[in-house]
Amino acid sequence: MMEPEERYQSLYVSRYCSRGPLVKLFSERNKTILWRQLWIWLAESELELGLKQISPEGIDEMKANRDKIEWQVVRDEERRLKHDVMAHNHAFGKICPKAAGFIHLGATSCFVQDNADLIVQRDAIDYLLKKLATVLSRLAAFAEANKDVVTVGRTHYQTASLVTVGKRAVLWAQELLIAFKQLEHVRENLRFRGIKGATGTQDSFMTLFGDEEKVEKLDELVTAKAGFAKRFYITGQTYSRQQDSHLIFALSCIGAAAEKICKDLRLLQVFGEMMEPFEQDQIGSSAMPYKRNPMKSERCCSFARGLIHSVEESLQTLADQGFERTLDDSAGRRMLIPDSLMATEAMLMTLQNIVEGLRVQHRNIERIVSKELPFLALEKAMMWLTECGCDRQIAHEKIRQTALAAKDRQEEEGHLFDPKKMLDDPFYDQVRDRYIALLGNPHAFIGRCTSQVGRFIAEELDPAIGKYLDKNDQKLNFHA
Amino acid sequence: MMEPEERYQSLYVSRYCSRGPLVKLFSERNKTILWRQLWIWLAESELELGLKQISPEGIDEMKANRDKIEWQVVRDEERRLKHDVMAHNHAFGKICPKAAGFIHLGATSCFVQDNADLIVQRDAIDYLLKKLATVLSRLAAFAEANKDVVTVGRTHYQTASLVTVGKRAVLWAQELLIAFKQLEHVRENLRFRGIKGATGTQDSFMTLFGDEEKVEKLDELVTAKAGFAKRFYITGQTYSRQQDSHLIFALSCIGAAAEKICKDLRLLQVFGEMMEPFEQDQIGSSAMPYKRNPMKSERCCSFARGLIHSVEESLQTLADQGFERTLDDSAGRRMLIPDSLMATEAMLMTLQNIVEGLRVQHRNIERIVSKELPFLALEKAMMWLTECGCDRQIAHEKIRQTALAAKDRQEEEGHLFDPKKMLDDPFYDQVRDRYIALLGNPHAFIGRCTSQVGRFIAEELDPAIGKYLDKNDQKLNFHA
Amino acid sequence: MMEPEERYQSLYVSRYCSRGPLVKLFSERNKTILWRQLWIWLAESELELGLKQISPEGIDEMKANRDKIEWQVVRDEERRLKHDVMAHNHAFGKICPKAAGFIHLGATSCFVQDNADLIVQRDAIDYLLKKLATVLSRLAAFAEANKDVVTVGRTHYQTASLVTVGKRAVLWAQELLIAFKQLEHVRENLRFRGIKGATGTQDSFMTLFGDEEKVEKLDELVTAKAGFAKRFYITGQTYSRQQDSHLIFALSCIGAAAEKICKDLRLLQVFGEMMEPFEQDQIGSSAMPYKRNPMKSERCCSFARGLIHSVEESLQTLADQGFERTLDDSAGRRMLIPDSLMATEAMLMTLQNIVEGLRVQHRNIERIVSKELPFLALEKAMMWLTECGCDRQIAHEKIRQTALAAKDRQEEEGHLFDPKKMLDDPFYDQVRDRYIALLGNPHAFIGRCTSQVGRFIAEELDPAIGKYLDKNDQKLNFHA
Amino acid sequence: MMEPEERYQSLYVSRYCSRGPLVKLFSERNKTILWRQLWIWLAESELELGLKQISPEGIDEMKANRDKIEWQVVRDEERRLKHDVMAHNHAFGKICPKAAGFIHLGATSCFVQDNADLIVQRDAIDYLLKKLATVLSRLAAFAEANKDVVTVGRTHYQTASLVTVGKRAVLWAQELLIAFKQLEHVRENLRFRGIKGATGTQDSFMTLFGDEEKVEKLDELVTAKAGFAKRFYITGQTYSRQQDSHLIFALSCIGAAAEKICKDLRLLQVFGEMMEPFEQDQIGSSAMPYKRNPMKSERCCSFARGLIHSVEESLQTLADQGFERTLDDSAGRRMLIPDSLMATEAMLMTLQNIVEGLRVQHRNIERIVSKELPFLALEKAMMWLTECGCDRQIAHEKIRQTALAAKDRQEEEGHLFDPKKMLDDPFYDQVRDRYIALLGNPHAFIGRCTSQVGRFIAEELDPAIGKYLDKNDQKLNFHA
Repeated sequence: MMEPEERYQSLYVSRYCSRGPLVKLFSERNKTILWRQLWIWLAESELELGLKQISPEGIDEMKANRDKIEWQVVRDEERRLKHDVMAHNHAFGKICPKAAGFIHLGATSCFVQDNADLIVQRDAIDYLLKKLATVLSRLAAFAEANKDVVTVGRTHYQTASLVTVGKRAVLWAQELLIAFKQLEHVRENLRFRGIKGATGTQDSFMTLFGDEEKVEKLDELVTAKAGFAKRFYITGQTYSRQQDSHLIFALSCIGAAAEKICKDLRLLQVFGEMMEPFEQDQIGSSAMPYKRNPMKSERCCSFARGLIHSVEESLQTLADQGFERTLDDSAGRRMLIPDSLMATEAMLMTLQNIVEGLRVQHRNIERIVSKELPFLALEKAMMWLTECGCDRQIAHEKIRQTALAAKDRQEEEGHLFDPKKMLDDPFYDQVRDRYIALLGNPHAFIGRCTSQVGRFIAEELDPAIGKYLDKNDQKLNFHA
Repeated sequence: MMEPEERYQSLYVSRYCSRGPLVKLFSERNKTILWRQLWIWLAESELELGLKQISPEGIDEMKANRDKIEWQVVRDEERRLKHDVMAHNHAFGKICPKAAGFIHLGATSCFVQDNADLIVQRDAIDYLLKKLATVLSRLAAFAEANKDVVTVGRTHYQTASLVTVGKRAVLWAQELLIAFKQLEHVRENLRFRGIKGATGTQDSFMTLFGDEEKVEKLDELVTAKAGFAKRFYITGQTYSRQQDSHLIFALSCIGAAAEKICKDLRLLQVFGEMMEPFEQDQIGSSAMPYKRNPMKSERCCSFARGLIHSVEESLQTLADQGFERTLDDSAGRRMLIPDSLMATEAMLMTLQNIVEGLRVQHRNIERIVSKELPFLALEKAMMWLTECGCDRQIAHEKIRQTALAAKDRQEEEGHLFDPKKMLDDPFYDQVRDRYIALLGNPHAFIGRCTSQVGRFIAEELDPAIGKYLDKNDQKLNFHA
Repeated sequence: MMEPEERYQSLYVSRYCSRGPLVKLFSERNKTILWRQLWIWLAESELELGLKQISPEGIDEMKANRDKIEWQVVRDEERRLKHDVMAHNHAFGKICPKAAGFIHLGATSCFVQDNADLIVQRDAIDYLLKKLATVLSRLAAFAEANKDVVTVGRTHYQTASLVTVGKRAVLWAQELLIAFKQLEHVRENLRFRGIKGATGTQDSFMTLFGDEEKVEKLDELVTAKAGFAKRFYITGQTYSRQQDSHLIFALSCIGAAAEKICKDLRLLQVFGEMMEPFEQDQIGSSAMPYKRNPMKSERCCSFARGLIHSVEESLQTLADQGFERTLDDSAGRRMLIPDSLMATEAMLMTLQNIVEGLRVQHRNIERIVSKELPFLALEKAMMWLTECGCDRQIAHEKIRQTALAAKDRQEEEGHLFDPKKMLDDPFYDQVRDRYIALLGNPHAFIGRCTSQVGRFIAEELDPAIGKYLDKNDQKLNFHA
Repeated sequence: MMEPEERYQSLYVSRYCSRGPLVKLFSERNKTILWRQLWIWLAESELELGLKQISPEGIDEMKANRDKIEWQVVRDEERRLKHDVMAHNHAFGKICPKAAGFIHLGATSCFVQDNADLIVQRDAIDYLLKKLATVLSRLAAFAEANKDVVTVGRTHYQTASLVTVGKRAVLWAQELLIAFKQLEHVRENLRFRGIKGATGTQDSFMTLFGDEEKVEKLDELVTAKAGFAKRFYITGQTYSRQQDSHLIFALSCIGAAAEKICKDLRLLQVFGEMMEPFEQDQIGSSAMPYKRNPMKSERCCSFARGLIHSVEESLQTLADQGFERTLDDSAGRRMLIPDSLMATEAMLMTLQNIVEGLRVQHRNIERIVSKELPFLALEKAMMWLTECGCDRQIAHEKIRQTALAAKDRQEEEGHLFDPKKMLDDPFYDQVRDRYIALLGNPHAFIGRCTSQVGRFIAEELDPAIGKYLDKNDQKLNFHA
């Protein structure tokens, strides 16, 4: 066998997801075992419904040999038959001679292909929902711990009314939570393809059983054995490719939400307000060893971009499907779905590590708030002036000039000025003292931030993620 | 005023949606009335909660003058103030002097902008859900009427096992139904932005009321007056742009589903199996007056393509939002959302007209089935041969040769051959008679198609759309 | 006629492009005049090639009446005939009775539709190339003026080796220039559809002329009259939709380049290093009148996003075209192309205004450089230490610790520290003096920035845009 | 080492491109060798320019050991240093002790990373241009051979004026040729990154050489050694990501063109007009062994869809790049570029196999032409009637009725009717004989198709691809 370095390798395998479960879930081995398991479930169900061709001994043999895969035999059969499902069928039949006559009885290739795909999707979604719940719980804890930490709000990236670090964190959490619910919605509505035949008419099973009720029951039994609560009542050869699009869209929402968060973080790190975790032995760059690049947040943005741009391919696959099935879905879908799920895994593992190690730079934040507060407080001064009878238009213009002059001076001189002097014009006589008093109390500017944090977590976030949390979940290490 | 022909005009207005309600819903007039209505609801609620600045007389004046818009005043104010919300505020204040002092009290621009956008979205969604329910009910009626009409199934576009016209129609309906439920899901989860302030902290309202409970109540009251069941508990300056993405995605699912259906129809029209309606006086082309182009189905595909390709822009808007708000969402979002909703309207109006006038070409369908049945029946012959002890591999190869030879002859001679002669080889002695007998009974090949149609409509489709149907709904005319 | 406020209006018309030429270029009036002009060119050419049906008097009549459009007549004809080209044909024939018999002789609808579309595209491209050349020349002037202004480089947004303001500006210019050349490449390769007939076989013209050479000549003549240097030798009913995709892609490159630039600018405005122009009377926000939001740069990003997400729809239109023509290109293409060109216009007008008014905040930039230089200079210290025999690994680690300790102190204390003290450890004895000396000379850190600016402008930018520049081009005002 | 079946594997490696050169081009081995080669070229050039640190012996050692890679050493170093370029640097230094001191002298990571990426891109483009030229030459040969074969044209998929099989084939070739030229344009403009330093200022090289001319010369020398004709004069840390977008776009154009062709082919195969090659031992399906699915054309469409949907991610990567470099390009770009190039390879290999084995079904085509000709000839009858003085409107309506009645009869009776009888109405007395005569001569309907084919190939196609053709190129086998 060739060294893996001799040929292209998916970076999810060699790098980004190498420690996670998905690279195994999407392996040829897992697919093979699932196909065999589907043949077992089919035979069991056919036996339960009285089909004489099926023998209990054959089923036992299939169960006993399910995980024994001789790859060379499979490859030889595929070269001979040029049909992968038939090749696996023969290879399995060879080690299960008692079952060989009835493996796959009445089914078409899509029975194992589509249904196995759905089982893998379901398992991946279940795993990702737990991952995302963990990230959300970490983010909630961070928000709770920082719900009172005053910081400048930013609209247009520019300083705006004060908020708290925790309030901003719940805004981030809210985006992830909406995406989480979307993925949960996909999971709850995920339907099994079941037993449908070559064009979805179940004609081959009607030929076998001659009885609509039994065929319906067969579909039910296999669906239940595969652990699905819902199934498609009708299909063509394949299940509706729209279901795939809903999955990809939910993943892309997670991506877009993560990108919004990580773009904020990358800027906060430049502002000196927050930092993503930096590993003990991490080196900024070879020339600037102390440099602290937000490379984890940047990586999340990179995965997110790929996810965002997967949706339309998936929708186009649906739009292009002809009649009971065309094969132009095949090559693309076989790569798009695993790649999207692995990109989500890689992104969430990185994001969890970021959130677990987020560092709030309190001293810098306070300095920035102090620098901006004299300006922000002018809004309240304007209000008081109006209450004192000053025309709002005049007050507005006066304050504009006062502030711009102070800002110019600040830029020119490069240090903080005395805010008392900013209002030394007699125009401000009536409000100057209240203004000065207010400057010492930034918490007077944050409105309902603190309670918003508590309420959002208690009423929206916690109830949504509770059942997905694993108490034993460990902090994540980061592997570049 | 310029003639509309002097400048570019949106084709939705001049052509595709000119008879529908959306072009009015997205008008400047409707926006202005909604902004004023939001100011009325705000003032009413503030009054109910005891805010002294608000007078009942002022509110009465606002209500009386809500729909009186003097566009020239608005335009002059906007030129002067360079701020559209302030311009409308002043213009409204001029005709409501008793309210002028408290219009917009405590609010920021996004209070009217975001909330009015959401009301318009909601109304558009409600309208589109009804439209889509109508299309679904028409499609269900068509499927029911054709549930027994045997036709060739098609995989890879090529003839495959028989299905029925009705069964294929419910597959189409299923795609639309999944998209319908997605849009309904968006509708049910649609949240109002409410009363949140400049960075989402509700600080200005805390200053006005000094009481968290009252501010919470204010948010509740305005939300209820606007007719929303849900609202965001937390926001930045704007509501989460992810909500927009979910809407656009649901529309794109309708688009992808419609495209799949219409691509099938365009091909069925070439095969001579079905035809989209052709208007009485419609001319195929000037050179070929009898030509029947499926131009309605083609138009649906064109709108669908636009919808499919709207999702990623919408997700990217979310991904690019910075902190409590950046303005890079503005210009794009102001066009993407109305354009996507109008594209959906145009597409559904066309699709409804198509479904209402679908013509099944029974004679052609029967001819095609007759031509293909001798080949399709070979699958059953192969099964019987195996039951009679013939090795499946040998039977498979023999049948392959028999069929290919017959196909070649058919292509060469260009007409139907005698299927009896096809099996005149002694190899087929044991099964020839059963085979011949079967050829007269195409219904023996359709499996559970008939019951699948009934069950899908009764158990899945009807319960989902029932409450959206309007009994008085008329058939649609088509306007090129 | 309805007020425009009663119905949805394209925001390009009502707002973003209202002062530019494109909204007229894409008007119904311009389309009508171009169709008539194409009929004139066709008749002239047919006459030149000896076709007896054509009369010079008829051509004179067409020329005299080309711009007289009675919209009511056109609308009535279209209602009657349900065919827009035929309606215009009749309406023109009514005012040109001598030409009525030969207008459109031998042509199909796509002769006027496709060719007029191409003329409009060409005119729009020519206009946009000039606009873009102007932006590039403004940016070059800015770069030249600031080629020596030292500022911190940024990788990962974090401080990196010093660059100059001008060098960064030429990096921006380079992105725009690459996109400019792509658009120029599209323009130079733009092909006219010409005279091809219903399925591209020119059969109707062969019937008229009975002579391949004359038909070829006819195609040449009309192409030349329309001012095109290239034409398609072969087409189906329409010209290759791939040509559209190349145009849309070039526009999307302009968009992506502008977005990169404007994202940088929005951040530089937060850092206080540069500011986009702020109109004299522009108000930041009603509550914070002094606020300076980079709303122009944000707007460019919004248009850019739309452009980026237009490419795939355009490519899919090509991919979906069937045989000699399918109509699923129509509705989408009729909106995508004008909207993309207008989005580019709106973006470039905004970008020109930004570049013309860019303000460099020298004092802040110097302060930031001073703060970062002691750290950046450590790279040189490390090099000297190595030259003095110190092991590079040891020097690297020592410097990492020194820098991190200094950074922590800086963050803690919030002001600049004495860089001399930073290196007071005896470890640095050999390099301390050279290090201190270097701190006073930031220009020692900028490598070849200055000459890179000059050379790029002289050798790459100026030669590319020269012929597109209009010496009388005025500075642009900005209209919100 | 794990079996490859134990983990996810890229399907390009395991299946679609397993026999092509790209999977090796994108291997870790090739990357490593290229990095080492770049270090050799850098050292050689530095030596040529007189840098004393470099020794000829060291360079000889590097050359001698370039291809000796001990993967375990590399992996160990990377685990220790957490920096892949440094790890390779050390690993190479260990086996080249004489060069260890100067490997990578003055460079940053992007020197090897970006430049090696560009070399790989160039080699892949060169390979794909040849592949595409081969496909084009095969398609031209097919068109030439079938330039006179009359077949029905199709607009809206419906029968339209006659064309020839060859003419349609050159329309396909034209789409591929436009895309070919786009890729060639990318190739001709491909620029090397060269020697630029950490933020593009070349500061480290200025420190080494102290001389702008020498640094410029160094950049030139390395570029020339790497075999590039063009290089970026200015860069940030990385080369412009717009260059990547141009590449991806060119690939997506190939994809869209191939999808248009293959969609046409899939339909022609249903119509029985053409067939893609079917392998000797290929089995349609297990139940229908004679079935001929156009699965190769379907596969091309699947790859094409992925390519089309890669453009926007690539453009967004450019749009998101911040200042002199941000790392959010990394993970996505590392997968998008190889995957897009391999998808193109897989698609072109399949397309070549299709074109080489295309089968024209002459008998069916003739039958379809015969069936449609009586209708198509009515267009000429209408013209003659007008020439005989009949009002065109009246002739048009009469012909419409005649044709529709005949079509209805044809559908009803299911076989060809006698076209003479179709015109038995006295209305047609003047034209009936000419009409009948024309029916025997389908070539009278094809206009200039034959000469269009010849001219397009001689004047446009052949000159474009000539230099890329390899005379020894073999026919391709297809591997499912």
